[in-house]
Amino acid sequence: MSKPTLYGPRYSTYTRAVIMALLEKRVDHSLVHVDMDKKEHKAPEHLARHPFGLLPAFQHGDFMIYETVPILNYIDDAFPGSRLTPADIHRRTRAAQIMSVINSYGYRPMVWGIFVPRTFTEPGKPVDEKAIAEAVPKAKQALQAIEDLMVNPDPFLVGRQISLADLLLVPIIHYFAGTPEGAKILPHYPKLMAWHTIIQSRPSVLETVPKVLSGVE
Amino acid sequence: MSKPTLYGPRYSTYTRAVIMALLEKRVDHSLVHVDMDKKEHKAPEHLARHPFGLLPAFQHGDFMIYETVPILNYIDDAFPGSRLTPADIHRRTRAAQIMSVINSYGYRPMVWGIFVPRTFTEPGKPVDEKAIAEAVPKAKQALQAIEDLMVNPDPFLVGRQISLADLLLVPIIHYFAGTPEGAKILPHYPKLMAWHTIIQSRPSVLETVPKVLSGVE
Repeated sequence: MSKPTLYGPRYSTYTRAVIMALLEKRVDHSLVHVDMDKKEHKAPEHLARHPFGLLPAFQHGDFMIYETVPILNYIDDAFPGSRLTPADIHRRTRAAQIMSVINSYGYRPMVWGIFVPRTFTEPGKPVDEKAIAEAVPKAKQALQAIEDLMVNPDPFLVGRQISLADLLLVPIIHYFAGTPEGAKILPHYPKLMAWHTIIQSRPSVLETVPKVLSGVE
Repeated sequence: MSKPTLYGPRYSTYTRAVIMALLEKRVDHSLVHVDMDKKEHKAPEHLARHPFGLLPAFQHGDFMIYETVPILNYIDDAFPGSRLTPADIHRRTRAAQIMSVINSYGYRPMVWGIFVPRTFTEPGKPVDEKAIAEAVPKAKQALQAIEDLMVNPDPFLVGRQISLADLLLVPIIHYFAGTPEGAKILPHYPKLMAWHTIIQSRPSVLETVPKVLSGVE
C-alpha cells in the first residue's frame, strides 16, 4: 500500500499530534499543507476529505479518515512500531478519558480562548480580555481533571510508555505554556509541570515545534 | 469484584447508551438515578464522580470512569459477552468516527437544539423557533456524515454486528425522530432510516425506552 498522506498545517495542534504519532511509529508519510489563512480547509477539495471542514484528515490507500482520535487509533493499529495504546485496561481507559477531556473541555479554552487572542491579535487592536478571562477557569478545570486522571506519571501521562494521550496534549500545552495565563496557571499542576518539562526533549516533540514557537521561518 | 454501578438518569441519551451496552453484554449492574431536575449532577457527591458535572459516570470496584465513549470501551473490554467493537480495522475506525461525529457535531443540534425545546417548553411559553431553525442545518450535516460513514450497513451501522456506535446513536435518533423536524429530515437519509427501523426491535432498545417516549409512568 502507498505511504499515507496527512492533510493539515503543522501549526494546527491536532495535525501536530498526528505527525508526532507518525514519527513515534516511524511511519513514512507525506504531509500536504492546508492553508487556513487562505480558507483552503473550507474549499471543496478539503470538504471531500473532511465534511466539517476541520483539520487534519488522513489518507491511507483509498481509506480517508477524519477526526483526530480515530486517526490516531488507526495509525497505532495499522502500522508496526511501538504501541501508543496501553495494554493495561485501567491505563488505557485513563488515556482515553484524558483525550476526551482535552477534546470536550480543554482544547477550546486553552487554544482559542487564551493562546489565539494573546498571540494573533493584530497590532493596534485590543486583545479580547473578556474572552480570555472567561476561558481561564475552564482551562483550570480541564487541567485539574487531566492531572487527576494521570496514572503514576513516570514520566508520561499514564505510565512509563508514551501514549496517544500524551501526543494529543503536548501541542496544546506547548501553546498554552507560552501565554502569560499559562505561565501563571500551569505551576499549580505539579504532575503536569513535571510531565511537560520531561516531554520537551522527546525527538517527536522537538522535530515538530511550530514556527510560531520556534521563531524560525 | 462487585457488580458495577452506573450513575445517571434513564432519560439521558448517554446514560441510555451505556445501559444498552450493559444489556447487550448481559452485565449485572446497579443503576443509581441522578436527578437533573434537582441539580443532583452538580452536587458534590456527583462532582466527585464526574468533575464536569455531566452524565453518566460508571464505577467498577474502586475504578470510577466518566465520559461516555471511554465508559463504553471499558465495558466492552472488561466484561465477557459479544464484542461491541469490530475486529476489522476499517469497520472499527468508521465506528469510532461515527461516535466522534455524534459527540462533536450531532448530539447538540439534535437533542438540545431541536428535541428539548420541542418537547419541554413549558405550556404557554413560546418555543425557541430561532434556535431550532439554527440547529436544523447542523443536524442535517451530522446525519449526512454518519450516513456516509456507514459501512455495508446490514443491518447495523458498520456491518452485521451491533457496535458501540449503534448504541451511542440510538437514543439520540430515538428522541430526534419524534420531533416534526426529525420526521421531515430523517427520510432524506435512507440508510439511516432503514437502520432505525430495524434496530427498534432490538431487546436492548425496547427495554430502555424512556418514559418521555413510551408515555408509561
